[in-house]
Amino acid sequence: MQNTRKPRSFFQSLVFGLMMSMLVVSISGCDDDDDDGSVNAPSSTDETAKYIFFFIGDGMASPQVNMTEAALADPNFRLVNGAITLGAMNLQHFPTAGMATTYAEDRYITGSAAAATALATGEKTSIGTISKNVAHTQDLKTMAEMAKEKGMKVGIVSSVSIDHATPACFYAHADSRNEYYNIASQMDESGFDYFGGGYAKGNFPGKGAGDVEIQMQNAGYEIVDNLGALKGVQPGQKCWAYTEYDGSGALFYEIDRMGTDHISLAEFTEQGIRLLDNPNGFFMMIEGGKVDWACHANDVVSATHDMVAFDDAIGIALDFYNQHPDETLIVVTGDHECGGLSLGYASTGYDTAFSLLKYQDISYQEYTEIVGSWKGTGKTFAAALEDVKEHFGLGDETLDPALALTDYERDQLEEAFDDSMNGGFDRNDEEVFLKYGPYYDPFTVTVTHILNQKAGISWTSYYHTGVPVPVYAIGAGGNSFSGSYDNTDVAKKIIEAGELN
Amino acid sequence: MQNTRKPRSFFQSLVFGLMMSMLVVSISGCDDDDDDGSVNAPSSTDETAKYIFFFIGDGMASPQVNMTEAALADPNFRLVNGAITLGAMNLQHFPTAGMATTYAEDRYITGSAAAATALATGEKTSIGTISKNVAHTQDLKTMAEMAKEKGMKVGIVSSVSIDHATPACFYAHADSRNEYYNIASQMDESGFDYFGGGYAKGNFPGKGAGDVEIQMQNAGYEIVDNLGALKGVQPGQKCWAYTEYDGSGALFYEIDRMGTDHISLAEFTEQGIRLLDNPNGFFMMIEGGKVDWACHANDVVSATHDMVAFDDAIGIALDFYNQHPDETLIVVTGDHECGGLSLGYASTGYDTAFSLLKYQDISYQEYTEIVGSWKGTGKTFAAALEDVKEHFGLGDETLDPALALTDYERDQLEEAFDDSMNGGFDRNDEEVFLKYGPYYDPFTVTVTHILNQKAGISWTSYYHTGVPVPVYAIGAGGNSFSGSYDNTDVAKKIIEAGELN
Repeated sequence: MQNTRKPRSFFQSLVFGLMMSMLVVSISGCDDDDDDGSVNAPSSTDETAKYIFFFIGDGMASPQVNMTEAALADPNFRLVNGAITLGAMNLQHFPTAGMATTYAEDRYITGSAAAATALATGEKTSIGTISKNVAHTQDLKTMAEMAKEKGMKVGIVSSVSIDHATPACFYAHADSRNEYYNIASQMDESGFDYFGGGYAKGNFPGKGAGDVEIQMQNAGYEIVDNLGALKGVQPGQKCWAYTEYDGSGALFYEIDRMGTDHISLAEFTEQGIRLLDNPNGFFMMIEGGKVDWACHANDVVSATHDMVAFDDAIGIALDFYNQHPDETLIVVTGDHECGGLSLGYASTGYDTAFSLLKYQDISYQEYTEIVGSWKGTGKTFAAALEDVKEHFGLGDETLDPALALTDYERDQLEEAFDDSMNGGFDRNDEEVFLKYGPYYDPFTVTVTHILNQKAGISWTSYYHTGVPVPVYAIGAGGNSFSGSYDNTDVAKKIIEAGELN
Repeated sequence: MQNTRKPRSFFQSLVFGLMMSMLVVSISGCDDDDDDGSVNAPSSTDETAKYIFFFIGDGMASPQVNMTEAALADPNFRLVNGAITLGAMNLQHFPTAGMATTYAEDRYITGSAAAATALATGEKTSIGTISKNVAHTQDLKTMAEMAKEKGMKVGIVSSVSIDHATPACFYAHADSRNEYYNIASQMDESGFDYFGGGYAKGNFPGKGAGDVEIQMQNAGYEIVDNLGALKGVQPGQKCWAYTEYDGSGALFYEIDRMGTDHISLAEFTEQGIRLLDNPNGFFMMIEGGKVDWACHANDVVSATHDMVAFDDAIGIALDFYNQHPDETLIVVTGDHECGGLSLGYASTGYDTAFSLLKYQDISYQEYTEIVGSWKGTGKTFAAALEDVKEHFGLGDETLDPALALTDYERDQLEEAFDDSMNGGFDRNDEEVFLKYGPYYDPFTVTVTHILNQKAGISWTSYYHTGVPVPVYAIGAGGNSFSGSYDNTDVAKKIIEAGELN
């Protein structure tokens, strides 16, 4: 059920029409019949779910899924690991789908803490709250805690810091998601068996007492920071595994990931299965956390790469499902949409050109650092445009005539370049805010906007939006996830399927 | 299962906070448990579907559904019939949901003809084609034709002209959707039992020989143009019923509808059931066609009113389902998204204020005519702003402080007003195009953009987009509609459920 891996082709087709026809053919090949390939027993059973995988794509709704599907259908879509992935997403093969509303108790557009509380506990709460009630007077029991009490092993995995809102809501209780030290200090108290992903932000200098690792060691956790060491941990041994992390304690964006020592979300999931598998079953939550961050920044290419990494982790769970189809439940959902992403843009009308996106080889975050390094160096706009060609293809007509800049686009880039180099703009001015958002580098965000728009992709916001999220399910109890319901119902259905309560 | 109707309250709350808390509470009340109220036997059966309802919301995807859900939760949301509707949409209660890709054979972002061909026949075709193959060498048999051959009665209902792309794809075959006369001339040849909705555009002066009504009469159809006459048609009598129509042969926008003689989509559906019900069963396709048009124009309020009218028609089908739960299949889907609608906007961030939308009492279309009537009259911008207050609430702080115009918004309106009154702008200029679209009145579209944005709603396009559409199903064979698939599969599943082929 894993995506078919083929060696990356460095020859990037210049023929737009061919790309598009291949895209259509490829999608067609995936969707024209109901055969879902190698997934065993696609109809779900009514057995109690003994092995539960709960995948949460942060900032993932239907547009993010559909965009990724389109990218995977492109035979030249570049992946960071040097391979191309051709075919449908794993989650598109799930036999059951539903749609969930996401609103928080006190706001229609939710945040990750309130959404993850709903998904972890089945209860609505207020923005920023980590698995406590609105009044903050009561802890809300999470499905992971229920699973632990029932004797199952429990794992929590995320591509952002392990004390970030989504993972936190499964093992901690806090008045605010910003209490990183308080949250990280609850990892050992949970008694959960496996934490994997980013580092604990609450252990950063200035964020707390710096003793989170000591707490974990005292509680019997083995702490590892590379794949080799993680593979050496024995089943039955409690473990906290992290990998190379950025300034937020998160994994690097997939598109920027370098070096084989960087543990991927799929590898964290695979090792989690190895450590957690036992006769009493297990519960594992796996978050693809940086889809959201890339969508906040309106960088669809980085979001798509992180979606693929998330889907690869789902592929690992499907491998396990294929071995235990009657006892395994896999549920995949998002906590909310982010960015108001749509696969259509006014200027491009009915046309799309997703293949143009393959020329971007760096995240907005890394590129922001590059642009920052130009300040005070006398970098010219012309030189900046050459650099944009290098990292985004934008303006390079030899790659694709559709990458040519219009006068309007060039003017936007020049103004943004000037703003990035010289500052002096005011984000409180609505027009400026619409262009650059709350804190994005003017030149970088203008580059991703223009590249996205040329591909027929656009955004309405730098924040989350209120559209519903898709829910995908397969396996024991999976049938109950069809239809329209609320995100709190996702939790209730999982709890019922696993008889966790 | 019909929405609870309550008399319209003319007192429109000025308290934004209260509105939002009521909105949240109301949604919460609808979604907090799995009880779907008055729908019998929400689990679907495997029996052959004898009565098949196929509802197609043109331009309807998840954002349109979710927006309508939010509007219905607002106790002061204004409906044209003077009532307010409080509660969830009928289609949100369907036990089965899925997601369908929509791409055409030759374009990722589809059009209504290619999409309706896929939905009617289970085959992909090219943009603009009416139920023929890509090469235009072969007619593709539609599920309605199959049902007729099987001995079932067949009805085709739409809120746009009866020869428009979506209804056409169920009874006609043509190389181009623009062959209105050719299409309309195939109504009588189909032998279908009931056509209801807008007029035949192909019978307009200049569009054909003007003999479509004569053709229909010669074929034994009774033609009626008001609800009283429609109610007088006897079951067994073939009928073409239309109602008051606009310059496109379509029903007026729900928000503009006046007078009780205007037959609603729900009434067309109700009368269709009366005429079609027979021991051999029936197939009825009902299109909510103007959601799409309002979304093209980026007018969310008009789109929402038409969504409510569409959902009311679904309520009629659910009433029938409740009487025949084991033999009835209802499937609801969209043909594509339109406008890149999102429930979130950069400037409003995490906040939404859907209650502001209730002050709009006229469609963009009617308002365009009003603005057009000002040309050459010396109408001042100040007077225009007073008119905007009257019809959209925009700028009227006494209604709601959030309706106050910012300097930026006022500048946009003044520029657009000048463009509407004096022309001289160039839509080929990308910046102008992004503001006004391919043919919308500058002032009107700027008004709806600003009102929508204040509510936290935004758009990325004036065209369709490529995001997937939701599919909702209930009844005989309904279970098969769960999961992710293609729009051609929707047709295949219906054909299988009804054993039509």
